[in-house]
Amino acid sequence: MNRRNFIKSGTAAGIGISVAAPTILQGQDDRKARLAFIGVGLRGRNHLRLALQRSDVVVTAICDIDPEAISKSQGMLTNAGKKEVAAYTNGEEDFRNMVQREDIDGVVISTPWRWHTPMAVAAMEAGKYAGVEVSAANTLQECWDLVDTSERTGMPCMILENVCYRRDVMAVLNMVRKGLFGELIHMECGYQHDLRHVKFNDGKQAYGGGVEFGEKGFSEAKWRTWHSVNRNGDLYPTHGIGPVAKYLSIERGNRFVYLTSTATKSRGLNNYIVENGGPDHPNAKVKFKLGDVITTVIKTANDESIIVSHDTNLPRPYSLGFRVQGTNGIWMDVNKSLYIEGTSEQPHRWESTESYFEEYDHPLWKKHESKAVGAGHGGMDFFVLHAFIEAIKRKTVTPLDAYDAASWSAISPLSEQSVALGSAPVEFPDFTRGKWRNRKDVFALNDEY
Amino acid sequence: MNRRNFIKSGTAAGIGISVAAPTILQGQDDRKARLAFIGVGLRGRNHLRLALQRSDVVVTAICDIDPEAISKSQGMLTNAGKKEVAAYTNGEEDFRNMVQREDIDGVVISTPWRWHTPMAVAAMEAGKYAGVEVSAANTLQECWDLVDTSERTGMPCMILENVCYRRDVMAVLNMVRKGLFGELIHMECGYQHDLRHVKFNDGKQAYGGGVEFGEKGFSEAKWRTWHSVNRNGDLYPTHGIGPVAKYLSIERGNRFVYLTSTATKSRGLNNYIVENGGPDHPNAKVKFKLGDVITTVIKTANDESIIVSHDTNLPRPYSLGFRVQGTNGIWMDVNKSLYIEGTSEQPHRWESTESYFEEYDHPLWKKHESKAVGAGHGGMDFFVLHAFIEAIKRKTVTPLDAYDAASWSAISPLSEQSVALGSAPVEFPDFTRGKWRNRKDVFALNDEY
Repeated sequence: MNRRNFIKSGTAAGIGISVAAPTILQGQDDRKARLAFIGVGLRGRNHLRLALQRSDVVVTAICDIDPEAISKSQGMLTNAGKKEVAAYTNGEEDFRNMVQREDIDGVVISTPWRWHTPMAVAAMEAGKYAGVEVSAANTLQECWDLVDTSERTGMPCMILENVCYRRDVMAVLNMVRKGLFGELIHMECGYQHDLRHVKFNDGKQAYGGGVEFGEKGFSEAKWRTWHSVNRNGDLYPTHGIGPVAKYLSIERGNRFVYLTSTATKSRGLNNYIVENGGPDHPNAKVKFKLGDVITTVIKTANDESIIVSHDTNLPRPYSLGFRVQGTNGIWMDVNKSLYIEGTSEQPHRWESTESYFEEYDHPLWKKHESKAVGAGHGGMDFFVLHAFIEAIKRKTVTPLDAYDAASWSAISPLSEQSVALGSAPVEFPDFTRGKWRNRKDVFALNDEY
Repeated sequence: MNRRNFIKSGTAAGIGISVAAPTILQGQDDRKARLAFIGVGLRGRNHLRLALQRSDVVVTAICDIDPEAISKSQGMLTNAGKKEVAAYTNGEEDFRNMVQREDIDGVVISTPWRWHTPMAVAAMEAGKYAGVEVSAANTLQECWDLVDTSERTGMPCMILENVCYRRDVMAVLNMVRKGLFGELIHMECGYQHDLRHVKFNDGKQAYGGGVEFGEKGFSEAKWRTWHSVNRNGDLYPTHGIGPVAKYLSIERGNRFVYLTSTATKSRGLNNYIVENGGPDHPNAKVKFKLGDVITTVIKTANDESIIVSHDTNLPRPYSLGFRVQGTNGIWMDVNKSLYIEGTSEQPHRWESTESYFEEYDHPLWKKHESKAVGAGHGGMDFFVLHAFIEAIKRKTVTPLDAYDAASWSAISPLSEQSVALGSAPVEFPDFTRGKWRNRKDVFALNDEY
């Protein structure tokens, strides 16, 4: 059985995670994952750095249109004692050549949003595992492209949503699974991050120092800000919704049914330009379509509600705003507190999450903590790449898949539709075509990956 | 000019708060407010107790269908060194006789929700100030009844929303008015209070001890729980929306345009009955229509958004969940923190509200703090009744009025509509019929009331 067919039948039959092959004895595991990278800017090189720290990864090729990104990556390889690898730099479509190589098992995609789906699709079409940064798709058609391609090719598409692996997020997952919150009722999450210094810079540094974007901007300001000019909706839902989708078993016994989105006026980005570049700066005339705060409310098939906030244009402390609430208790991350009926000592009083998060620390974190330290974003980045690599090594499905990628990413286009329709409810497609009812959870079930 | 015409012209012309009549010299103010009370249960007697502590109030009559409530109230009067007053106890409609008395200036209404509007209307029709507990109305027709009656009679209808006078809420109002948050963008608020021990009791005590409600319940369980059986929507929006409406100048330069509401499944109340009364208790068969968490999102004419949460059936710590966010900063009460750009020392970091709330303590609190202590609900109850009384003494408009009562209370029926329509947006009536554009703020402008 070749890999493609193995995975195809695994996916189709819903087998879930396979156990390690019995011929692999403890301590003698020489399985390797051969990885290629599309996009080796700041984010891609973070993944590359983690890959180079592992003995079970062979980096075989890299792709970027920016020569500086390529040379920095080659430098990382040689600094790690490896040889330089094949580089694909011949224009925006050269990734299509790279993914045809036979020495690649998986492709890590860390490019501007508009390229995520075409690149993931190309990787899967070439028989490679696709690991794609967030969000994975920008339109409903792209969401379907990910699902249809993964189903047709039998290749997994893993959305590399690192926050699913945040330590407190995983401890709460552990608590959810152990029933501490009872039956889940209501969730909150979001992306609340003052990105003004990301959306604008001086064209030389990645963060701040000026009010340029687009052609004159650097790094994310080069492409990300375009979306704030042209789109009004939740542009970046997955850091919040990913963990919540895992708590609620979305696409595995549950699904998103519909959402409403409400956008405020747009003030923050223009204010920032005027304050930092002056009223006469050309960008002070740019009209930003993106409302400063977008509030989305999702209804699920199991009759829960989820508030998803998108808030990236105003001065504020970073917060993903998690809240998990069930018939037996509630957790909120903004005040680092929870309440569990019958366990919390004082009725009607918050208590610190600290002792709970120690007690319910997820087995993955317990086992791999030392490796995760320094990996980036508090260790999350280690785990998300680790999971992609371990799935490749086992030739099995990824713990986050194309259905996850599609249903989470679909929030953006659906949110834009709802905003344009004056907050009218807009239905989610059923990306599993009915399979959500019987699919089993495969995410972080043990301490392996 | 008699009082009715004075107020009518004052209301119509938008004069705002009059200054004290010049004949009233400092320290020689002998103006009195003559108050009657409809409903002297637990809440009504709290107002009565505060009224009896004041030298500027004469209590002239009380009304209740419960003989015990009447006798306890008369006892409070005699204990305070006053004579017993006329009591109206002859059935549910006897309040109509009481409000006709000529020795009443204002009527304080603290009855079950369904009676608020008819009683407030009767008071205004009789030429009396109406002070009505929250929510003031249950249906859109009742909202219009309050507005139309107040306009026609020229008598004010004050919604007695005590949270508008919470100390931190007023400090934030002060900060909003001084521009610390910049232009307001997004708000959050709600009523998040585990009311299971209020909705159910043993028929003898007000809070808990059993799973009875309706005929067999006591105090609020007697009537309030009915709404959880029969209605699905935000049943109790004003504690949250009142303060937010003041921040956003609703009905005074701004207004609510539409809302969407999303309800979760209903689990908490049935669980409580089964756990505390057993699965065979007759109430275990009751189907509760009210979803455990109701999330409402309001869009305003000035293009802000407001999330309003209603969450009364699950175990959780009390929180009104305030968030005030503008172009220059953000406050959240759940973590007692704020961030003000250019003022907060560390960028992207929350700081404690403590020093801000000291610096921006509202003049009303600074002046009346000693009187507020012990008044109930942390002093709020003193201020809300104080404002009603001072408006009566000055023969002027009340700081919260019929338009406030209508637009805040309208959230309940509109929310029910939206939930029934699968979260479709539902428009707010313009209760001011266009006057909202030019009406001036009169709430808590100084240290008087």
